[in-house]
Amino acid sequence: MTDTILLRDDRDGIATLTLNTPGSLNALSDAMLAALKGTFAALAEDRSVRVVILKGAGKAFCAGHDLKEMQAGRQAADKGRAYFADLFARCAEVMQMIPALPQPVIAEVHGIATAAGCQLVASCDMAVAAEGTRFGVNGVNIGLFCSTPMVALTRNVPRKVAFEMLTTGQFIDAARAAEVGLVNHVVSHDALAAETRALAETVAGKLTAAVKIGKRAFYDQIEMTRAEAYDHAAAVMVENMLWRDTEEGISAFLEKRKPDWS
Amino acid sequence: MTDTILLRDDRDGIATLTLNTPGSLNALSDAMLAALKGTFAALAEDRSVRVVILKGAGKAFCAGHDLKEMQAGRQAADKGRAYFADLFARCAEVMQMIPALPQPVIAEVHGIATAAGCQLVASCDMAVAAEGTRFGVNGVNIGLFCSTPMVALTRNVPRKVAFEMLTTGQFIDAARAAEVGLVNHVVSHDALAAETRALAETVAGKLTAAVKIGKRAFYDQIEMTRAEAYDHAAAVMVENMLWRDTEEGISAFLEKRKPDWS
Amino acid sequence: MTDTILLRDDRDGIATLTLNTPGSLNALSDAMLAALKGTFAALAEDRSVRVVILKGAGKAFCAGHDLKEMQAGRQAADKGRAYFADLFARCAEVMQMIPALPQPVIAEVHGIATAAGCQLVASCDMAVAAEGTRFGVNGVNIGLFCSTPMVALTRNVPRKVAFEMLTTGQFIDAARAAEVGLVNHVVSHDALAAETRALAETVAGKLTAAVKIGKRAFYDQIEMTRAEAYDHAAAVMVENMLWRDTEEGISAFLEKRKPDWS
Repeated sequence: MTDTILLRDDRDGIATLTLNTPGSLNALSDAMLAALKGTFAALAEDRSVRVVILKGAGKAFCAGHDLKEMQAGRQAADKGRAYFADLFARCAEVMQMIPALPQPVIAEVHGIATAAGCQLVASCDMAVAAEGTRFGVNGVNIGLFCSTPMVALTRNVPRKVAFEMLTTGQFIDAARAAEVGLVNHVVSHDALAAETRALAETVAGKLTAAVKIGKRAFYDQIEMTRAEAYDHAAAVMVENMLWRDTEEGISAFLEKRKPDWS
Repeated sequence: MTDTILLRDDRDGIATLTLNTPGSLNALSDAMLAALKGTFAALAEDRSVRVVILKGAGKAFCAGHDLKEMQAGRQAADKGRAYFADLFARCAEVMQMIPALPQPVIAEVHGIATAAGCQLVASCDMAVAAEGTRFGVNGVNIGLFCSTPMVALTRNVPRKVAFEMLTTGQFIDAARAAEVGLVNHVVSHDALAAETRALAETVAGKLTAAVKIGKRAFYDQIEMTRAEAYDHAAAVMVENMLWRDTEEGISAFLEKRKPDWS
Repeated sequence: MTDTILLRDDRDGIATLTLNTPGSLNALSDAMLAALKGTFAALAEDRSVRVVILKGAGKAFCAGHDLKEMQAGRQAADKGRAYFADLFARCAEVMQMIPALPQPVIAEVHGIATAAGCQLVASCDMAVAAEGTRFGVNGVNIGLFCSTPMVALTRNVPRKVAFEMLTTGQFIDAARAAEVGLVNHVVSHDALAAETRALAETVAGKLTAAVKIGKRAFYDQIEMTRAEAYDHAAAVMVENMLWRDTEEGISAFLEKRKPDWS
């Protein structure tokens, strides 16, 4: 399944994942969530991959959950309660696998990113968007408030911006998404793949272990008090300093040469 | 009292509250706080109201506490200690009733919003401001640091912006307020009422129960760790999915028709 | 030592501290950290100082840790583990002394502010930067992720912005730093000292006790839940209200005269 609905292409330490059900605007169906979970689990163990790019095939990045599948879930004796509970738990698990991955994950966004698709952007460590991309948490328009997307969104953008998006269901464009912190950069549609790749290559060129320890510390410390965060981050820096590659990196800098991290 | 110092006008599911003591720049006097508390309590139980707009009569939105009344409180044997403790507790209670209301509350801001008046804007779920509006937490200018307004302000805008406003007492204009997240939109003075109403109508047009459950979850999850927030939000979405109106909303979307939420 | 590596110049209640090892781009060496710690400790007890400005001599504000000194620390039997642990603990302590100081601290930034130098900017209560200043948490470029600078940075700027700076090692310019909340104002290089001083004088002109109680409450409440924060801030405001100088400040305002805070 993964071969077809979620493409993976590894090149020079960068794994590009492509949501590949364009007919459903790359909906996060049960199968897609399973494919993402499996792929993220594999990436977590794959030391050959240093950065991950996540994109969508066709006209859109991702339009959120598969509504037809969700409606079908209502056929059960409990009217879908168990299925929905399982679905949202699986979805939240997949979303949280992104910050938990050792590799930085960059969303390459075009077309639309709505509901759980917008959540996917918010859950990535960084995001690059094509001009014209529209972002929304618009479940409220069909009577389903985007409560789980809200968790990721409110950890990216200011409160009043998030509240308006959630309760009006209105979209914001890419430029606005950059202003409010939902994406890092906006580029022309033609430049999207190249610019995202360039960002990935920049990060992939760093010492992998340092990026890994840093990413983990990023999300660990951000939910601590400042004093706890400092204690934690200081311990991380001590470990980082003791690596041979870091010793070499600093020596190379002082000697004005490139580090030998081979 | 409420009839005169705090006007309430309900129309098409939108309640507009008008602070109506323009002679005192709509100061948050004991009477005004009581009127707000009573009105918010009534709104919390009023299923006919889907959105609330909060505005000020006359030249300003709100200039904060009633300083004359506060000075008068010093006549007590304890020099006002008990009165001030009660006053700030009542004020904080009123401010926190806003995020606790089931309906979204939109501040419609013009003229000035200072000290507890600025706190009122920060406490609302959304805000629309007229060009030329000035915002400040300027108590420091008279020796009274805006400590309670700070609680709301620092949950809206970046730290250094808040710190500067609080310690310099200087005002920011509406455009800057939008940039930093204190208001959602800036419009011309002439368009203020219509634009705020349009935003209110957009939200009022959504499924009321979804907005209500979503607003509550918004503030509940924002103070949790991400993992806790996901557990909570996922449970909220399951409930939301099981409503008949939400089933209808999704069906209507899939069938490309308007939902029947009558 | 302090006389030479960390200059202090007090004038009209404003203490200007100048990091003064321009040959090392004002690196935070053991000696500099000790000088900062000693000076901050002295300032904490110095009632004649109402505002602190922190700047750098020469071409840069501060380029972070002293890498030569750190490499030398590896000579120890434990390869530096104890030294590094002590170093990062001392550095985190110095950084956290800034929000803990009773006086507001303003960073006056020019040239570059990198790694722990960028952390220093983020740790100050406010910052003014010269056009052309570049900010980076670029330790990742030499294999040492800026984990402790991250603690301060992520409490100033949106997540995705911070993540990109940390994992790419790329610099942002002063205009971008202002947009994302890392600095308050950007001014021409020629105006930097005057503009920073003007901001300091504005704050120094307020009632010192109010600024002090407010600054402490600012950082105390920001890590609390909103309800806890209100309880705390309300208690602070009661104390503030009971001061004679605050009574005078409010009376003066009501009587449209300047307060007599002599």
